This record gives sequence, C-alpha cells and structure tokens, in this order.
Amino acid sequence: MTIKEIRAGKLKPKAFISEKIKEISDIVGNGIAINALSGGVDSSTVTMLGHKALGERLKTYFIDHGLMREGEPQSVVDLFGKLGVRVNLVDAREVFFNALKRIEDPEEKREAITKTFYRDVFGKLVRETGAKYLMHGTILTDVDETVAGIKRQHNILTQLGIDTEKEFGYHVIEPLIQLRKDGVRKVAKALGLPKEVYGRMPFLGPALAGRIIGEVTPERVEIVRKATAVVEEELAGSGAFQYMAILHKDRVTGMREGKREFGLQIEVRCWESVDARTAMPARLPFKTLTKVAERITSEVPCVVSVTYNITPKPPSTMEAV
Amino acid sequence: MTIKEIRAGKLKPKAFISEKIKEISDIVGNGIAINALSGGVDSSTVTMLGHKALGERLKTYFIDHGLMREGEPQSVVDLFGKLGVRVNLVDAREVFFNALKRIEDPEEKREAITKTFYRDVFGKLVRETGAKYLMHGTILTDVDETVAGIKRQHNILTQLGIDTEKEFGYHVIEPLIQLRKDGVRKVAKALGLPKEVYGRMPFLGPALAGRIIGEVTPERVEIVRKATAVVEEELAGSGAFQYMAILHKDRVTGMREGKREFGLQIEVRCWESVDARTAMPARLPFKTLTKVAERITSEVPCVVSVTYNITPKPPSTMEAV
Repeated sequence: MTIKEIRAGKLKPKAFISEKIKEISDIVGNGIAINALSGGVDSSTVTMLGHKALGERLKTYFIDHGLMREGEPQSVVDLFGKLGVRVNLVDAREVFFNALKRIEDPEEKREAITKTFYRDVFGKLVRETGAKYLMHGTILTDVDETVAGIKRQHNILTQLGIDTEKEFGYHVIEPLIQLRKDGVRKVAKALGLPKEVYGRMPFLGPALAGRIIGEVTPERVEIVRKATAVVEEELAGSGAFQYMAILHKDRVTGMREGKREFGLQIEVRCWESVDARTAMPARLPFKTLTKVAERITSEVPCVVSVTYNITPKPPSTMEAV
Repeated sequence: MTIKEIRAGKLKPKAFISEKIKEISDIVGNGIAINALSGGVDSSTVTMLGHKALGERLKTYFIDHGLMREGEPQSVVDLFGKLGVRVNLVDAREVFFNALKRIEDPEEKREAITKTFYRDVFGKLVRETGAKYLMHGTILTDVDETVAGIKRQHNILTQLGIDTEKEFGYHVIEPLIQLRKDGVRKVAKALGLPKEVYGRMPFLGPALAGRIIGEVTPERVEIVRKATAVVEEELAGSGAFQYMAILHKDRVTGMREGKREFGLQIEVRCWESVDARTAMPARLPFKTLTKVAERITSEVPCVVSVTYNITPKPPSTMEAV
C-alpha cells in the first residue's frame, strides 16, 4: 500500500481538520475509541482530532511510566483539562521499573518498554474499556523508518496483545499518516493547541529510559531527569531542533575538596536539524556550555563530568540508546 | 623533611645543572646507576643530567609496555641516540597485557601497571645490572600530591621489590625534587634537549591505559592510539596545555549506510591550564571540533560518536581514569 504524502507547504490545516473529523466520525459511529496521550505533538494532535469528532466517546489515557521529565505527567493532564479534554492519568511506574530491572542492552530495553506499554498496561485498558477503535499518532516518517529497518517494525494490534484472527473487529485509526512532523505542527496549531505542544521538541517513546546507558532504575532516572531540567532551561533560547542530557554508565575520575571522587558523567547533545534525517551539533557559545556543565556538576548528585557531543548525524544518531 | 622549593623564576639553569652533575658524581663515585626513561620531560632531564655526570655508568632503559602512542618507543630511542645517549629498549608488551587482563577498576589498573613496571620489569633490571643507585624524576608536585592523597603514596624502593632492610646499600637520587614542571622545562632546554621534549605535553604514567575506560587490551589500545594521533595532529596548533582522546566502555547507537550500528564513543579533552592544579576546557572553534569528530569517526574503526569535555577542573580531573 502506498501512502499519499501531504507536504506541509501544500497542507490546508482547516480543511484537513474538517476532513479528518468527518472520517473519524464515520468510522467510529456510536462506538467507543481509545488513545494513549504522551504529550508529544503527534499524540496531542490525535487527541484533539478525536475529541472534536467523538467527544466523551474517545477515552484518552496518559500512562505515567516513571520515565517522564520533571512535572510532565500532571502538566499534560492540566493542559488538556483547560482545553476541555479529560485525560485519565494511570500510575504504572512500578510495572515499568519491574520490567526494566537488570536490563542493559538498548534493544532489550526498548522491547521491555514497548511490551509493558502496549501489552501489559495500555492493552489491558483497551480490553477493559471494550473499545474497538484505536487512535494512533503514526506519521509518514515512522512508516519510512520501519521500512528502512532503522526502527523495529511494529504492528499496533499485535503489540497490544490482540489476536486479530480471534478477536475480530478491531480498527486502527491513523489520521496523521500522510503527514510529516512539520505538517503535524501546522495542524496542532490550527487545532488551538498551545505553542508548548505544537512547537515541542521531539521526545522519543522510551522517554528518559532512552537517555540512560545501562540499567534503568528510579534513582538513575532521577539523575537524568535533573540533568534534563538544567539542559532544557539553559538551552530553551538556543533555537535548536532538539537538546538532551544522557546519563552514562562509565564512571570517570573527578575531585571535590581536593579528594578523588569516582563519579558520573552526563553527555549533552544539542542538534541543528530540519527533519531529523541529518543533523549537526549546534555551535553553542562556550559560555553556555560552561554554565550547563557547572550547573549539572553542582546541582545533580554524583556527577563530576559533562561532555558535549560534537559528531554529525550520520554516523551519530540523535539519541544515544 | 621539608624540601626547599626552587621557583622557576629564580632558577639559574646552568648553575643548577653544574651543581646537580657534581652531586650525582659525588654520590655514585665509581658505581653503576640506572634509570627508566619514558620520554617525558622529567625522565628525559634526569637521563641527560645522569649521562653528563656518569657517562656509560648510567644505564638507561625505555620500557615498551605497549601503552605508548604511535611510533613513540622508537622515536625516543632515536632522539637520545642523536644526543649521544644509548637507551636500551625493552619489549615488555606481553607482560603488561597479561597483567591487565580483565581489570576494569581504575585503581586496580594503575596498581597493576605500577607493580608490573617497577617490580616485574624494571625491578628485575635493577637487580640484574647490580646497580645500587636509582635515578628518578620525582618533582615537587608529585610530593605535594602524595601528601594530599590524590595520587597513591609511593616509595620507589618498595615498589621495586627491594627489601631495604635485607638488601642494604640502595640509593635513590631525585635531582629534580626541588622543582615544578616549569622549572624542569627550563633545565631541559638548557641541557640541549629539543623542544619536542622540553615543551612536551604532560603524558601520564599509565600512558594510554589511563585513556581507556574498562579493560585494557591490545585491540582497545590500538583504537585509542589512533584517536590520540588524530587529536594530537589536529590540536597541535591550539596552544593548549594538554589534549587527549579517551575510549569509553559504554556503547552508543550510531548509523552507517542507513543501518543502526551499536558502536564506540571517544571523548576528547583539551585543557587550558598554567600548572594543572585548575584547568578550563579550551574554547576550540567548532570547525576544529567538527573536523576532529569527522576524522575520528571515519579513521578509527567502530567509533560512531565523539564528545568534547566541557567541565572545569575541579570537579573534573584532567585525565578520566
């Protein structure tokens, strides 16, 4: 099946929105639909489209896996509350941390998060609510990357633990599949979502777990969360495409009060990019880099060293894990 | 015992050299002295002083532990040959790599290198040659750091496996103990050593093993050696105090030819410093940083990512291990 791309330059957001609302209404009819909201631009846009089409018949869940940034779960719920959309906040932190115990390999880590998210947590909600319609924020770039084999192939129903042969009648609705990120941002803005959503930096699926080399534990998530808060504060005005903090597993020697301290290292990445397919490290002023390093080493426990990634993509990728 | 410091500003190199030559001659008399030369400014200066005092009665050894930089062992031997000093090159690579097998902890790594160097390799030479006089390039900063507990305490005779009670009559001669690095450089220059020696960047004792996080194997030394060569070539004109490449153990995701590659990361450090007690990352142009990253990722096998350290010392240290 070939998907017909709608380029951002040719996109008419208002017309696109009306068309998608009608499509969703026609498909779901009087049924119940469900979706998972992460707060990212794709899932936020799907939530708004679905809500406009179905109102309370769209059940929206925010799953707190304990891997979000500082204050993120509550702020997403509050933001949608103000827009008249009720979001159900599900505390699944224990389930996720149990699933991540002792896993160090990045593929296994992603696998554990995906499986826990779709099958154990969200899959269970789908089955419990009796929804037969799943709304999903797949965009054209996701399809491309699946074909290229860069990201693991995914089939949403299989991931949800739903045997489509046995449990007949499930439908997946992907209203953004003809768009790329820039198109989605235009639609999000036209839907009345605030700039913090439509202008939001990409934040990957495994969230902070993708910013941790080695085992993901509540303590290590807390360290990378604190470093992420510093990086996001200091680089908010940089105009860069994406910036992040990564916690390394390797320990390095540092010193405090004249004594050797074998401590942690945080790697900072800040990318200039148009479409994430290629990227260059942003040429940040050294004053900014030094301030980031000084704040992280003084505000985040056990961190004695901070680096800045200077590799273009490719051969680097934007994320480390 | 208090050591009386001679500050570089007040040092008269010619007078200092004459005085030390006389002292060494008086102590050794017609005996045999021995020393280990690493090619660094301290051991090179000691070698020249000892040679001027004792001629062929000073036996100088360069121990190749397999952890030196590209072409380094032969170039040190050649350089001293031109100055009329015979240096005995000892191939001890196998002994060192065996001693380093499966060691990951930095303290244990340093311990293994020190023990292998002094006790197993150099200590054996000392006992075999029958030398009772050891010349050693200790400087005042080494003494300070031993007192402050930053570096491990060392006692050269104990390290050499020599029981001073049982094997009476050993003498340690430390002609540079009243100087700091800047003073030693002045003496080295006055002794006729070339700029590549007296202006040489500090290069620590454990050599490239100190630039490897995790196990030190011939293959991993080869990777950091190649990266070091690139960093030294590209930053030679930077005027910085010290620069280096560090091989991490952590692997990060990269991509080559559109496919995911779980590869290695090299960390680059380049320090501005006067005396190594405090230091700041050099504010290198991004053009230089990008070139370093591009060369390392294309010339060094398996490396997909390069970072630049942006942390001041303290809380960082100059070396990572």
